[in-house]
Amino acid sequence: MRVLLVGATGLLGTEIRRCLEPEHEVIGASRKGSDVSVDLSNKASIVAMYDAVGKVGAVVCVGGAAKFAPMDALADDDYAFSLANKLMGQVNLVRCASGHVEEGGSVTLTSGTLSQQPMIGSAAVSIVNAGVEGFVRAAALELQGKMRVNVVSPGWVAETLASMGKDAAQGIAAVDVAKVYKRAIDETMTGQTLLAAKT
Amino acid sequence: MRVLLVGATGLLGTEIRRCLEPEHEVIGASRKGSDVSVDLSNKASIVAMYDAVGKVGAVVCVGGAAKFAPMDALADDDYAFSLANKLMGQVNLVRCASGHVEEGGSVTLTSGTLSQQPMIGSAAVSIVNAGVEGFVRAAALELQGKMRVNVVSPGWVAETLASMGKDAAQGIAAVDVAKVYKRAIDETMTGQTLLAAKT
Repeated sequence: MRVLLVGATGLLGTEIRRCLEPEHEVIGASRKGSDVSVDLSNKASIVAMYDAVGKVGAVVCVGGAAKFAPMDALADDDYAFSLANKLMGQVNLVRCASGHVEEGGSVTLTSGTLSQQPMIGSAAVSIVNAGVEGFVRAAALELQGKMRVNVVSPGWVAETLASMGKDAAQGIAAVDVAKVYKRAIDETMTGQTLLAAKT
Repeated sequence: MRVLLVGATGLLGTEIRRCLEPEHEVIGASRKGSDVSVDLSNKASIVAMYDAVGKVGAVVCVGGAAKFAPMDALADDDYAFSLANKLMGQVNLVRCASGHVEEGGSVTLTSGTLSQQPMIGSAAVSIVNAGVEGFVRAAALELQGKMRVNVVSPGWVAETLASMGKDAAQGIAAVDVAKVYKRAIDETMTGQTLLAAKT
C-alpha cells in the first residue's frame, strides 16, 4: 500500500517509516527535506501535496505544532498558531483527503496525552489535542464506508524525555509508538483514539 | 454572590438565572438585551464586559455558537467561526477573568454531549466542545488557588428536542441542566466536565 506520512522527518515519523517500509511504500511529507513539502497550517499547501502524491491507501500525520507555555505567557497569537497548525492542519488533512485516499483507506492523526492529562503549560496543546480527538469521532461517522479516521494519542516518548534530561524509563519508546500507527493502518477500527503509552 | 451569566437570554441562560436568583445576584450578558452586552468572538468586547461589571464571585457561560452541518457543507469560514466563537470565546473568558473574579471564585463554561457522542453534522461542534473540555482540564491546574474552572456538558435538552419536533422525553429538562451549573458555582470541584444528561 502507498502511505503518505506527514511529519516524516521527526522522531516519530522516522520510526513510523521504519516500521511501515517492510510492507508499504512510504511517501514522506514535511516542511522540508521530504519527498514532498507541506505546510500544515496552509490548506492550499495540503491540497497541493495531495495532488503531487497521487492516490494513497493511507495517510498518517505526526506533524503539526502547538505552543507549550504557561497561560500567562500564551499570547493570542500562540493560540491562533496552535489552532491553525496542529488542529486545523490535521482537520484539513481529512477534509481534503476525498479523492486522494482509496476507498476503504485510512487517515490517522496525532493528539497526545495532554488532551486528557494536562500539565502546567499545556493549555493550548490540550485544546488542540482534545479538539483533534473530538473531530475524529465525528468525522469517522460521516466518512463511514469511504475512509477510516483515527487518532493516536502518544504518551510521553522515552527519547523525548531523555532529550529533556528526564527519566526515559518513564516513557514509551518511539519504536513502540510507531506500532500503534501501523495498527491504525492495518486493522479496521474507525473513530478511535488509540493510546500509545507506557504500559 | 455576584454571578456574571454570559448567554443570559437563551433557554439555558433563562433557567440558570431563575435557579440562581434566590441566592445570588445575577448580572446577565449577551449580544443584546441583557444588563451588559458582549460579543464572545471579540476579546476586546470580553475585556470591556468585565470592566463594566466589576468584581464577581462566579462567571457562567452558556453563550457561544458553533456551526452544525455535514462536513461536505462546512466551509473554512464555518470552522473559523466556530473556533473563534464557542471555543476561543470561552477560553478568552477564562484568560481575561484574572482581576475580575474574586479569589476562590469560579468560571463555568459549556461544552455539550457532541464532544463525546458525535452525530452527522457535528464535526465543528465536536472539535469545539472537546477543545473546551481539554482547556478546562489544563486551565484548572494553572489557576489552582486563584479560581476554579469547570465545564458543563449538557445532553440533549428536552425543550430543544420538542422545538425540533422530536421526543422531549429523551432529553433532560432545562431546569435540571441549570442545577448542574449551580453545583459548579456552589461546590468545590475544579477542572471537571460535569455531565448534565437525562439519567
